[in-house]
Amino acid sequence: MAIDILRVSTLSAPTAVAGAIAAVIKEKGIVELHSVGASATNQAVKSVAIARRYLADDGIDLVCVPDFTSVTIRDEERTAMCLTVTPR
Amino acid sequence: MAIDILRVSTLSAPTAVAGAIAAVIKEKGIVELHSVGASATNQAVKSVAIARRYLADDGIDLVCVPDFTSVTIRDEERTAMCLTVTPR
Repeated sequence: MAIDILRVSTLSAPTAVAGAIAAVIKEKGIVELHSVGASATNQAVKSVAIARRYLADDGIDLVCVPDFTSVTIRDEERTAMCLTVTPR
Repeated sequence: MAIDILRVSTLSAPTAVAGAIAAVIKEKGIVELHSVGASATNQAVKSVAIARRYLADDGIDLVCVPDFTSVTIRDEERTAMCLTVTPR
């Protein structure tokens, strides 16, 4: 099964990304957040912190595993952060 | 036992922070990274990704749990990110 990827940008609202994380975790148990740049990575980390609160009522806590990955943006290879998020 | 806290700033070198993470994990099994601002949080996340590589030879993988915290800087309360890092 392919892992769902959420692309997080500087403009992503952390609460909205958190909602998406919570939904995918409940359905599939794993989700990857990809972000390019410091600001987007910060949004991704905040989103996971907020998603932990959303899922607390369901008795689910989250951990994330950060790694580097590369993404292609307008035919250009960029280094991105990948946060793999799963229940603890 | 108190948890060791590493304060990560914009100027922190991720490889150096990664070395510190690896050392504390091997000694105590847990470490907290505190960061204020997007750039510092980005450095913290990168540091964990690099520390995972440093620890791979020891058969240790890392996960982190992000949460919000507050720190006092020059008598001013600031929201910070706290990444609690432990072996997977």
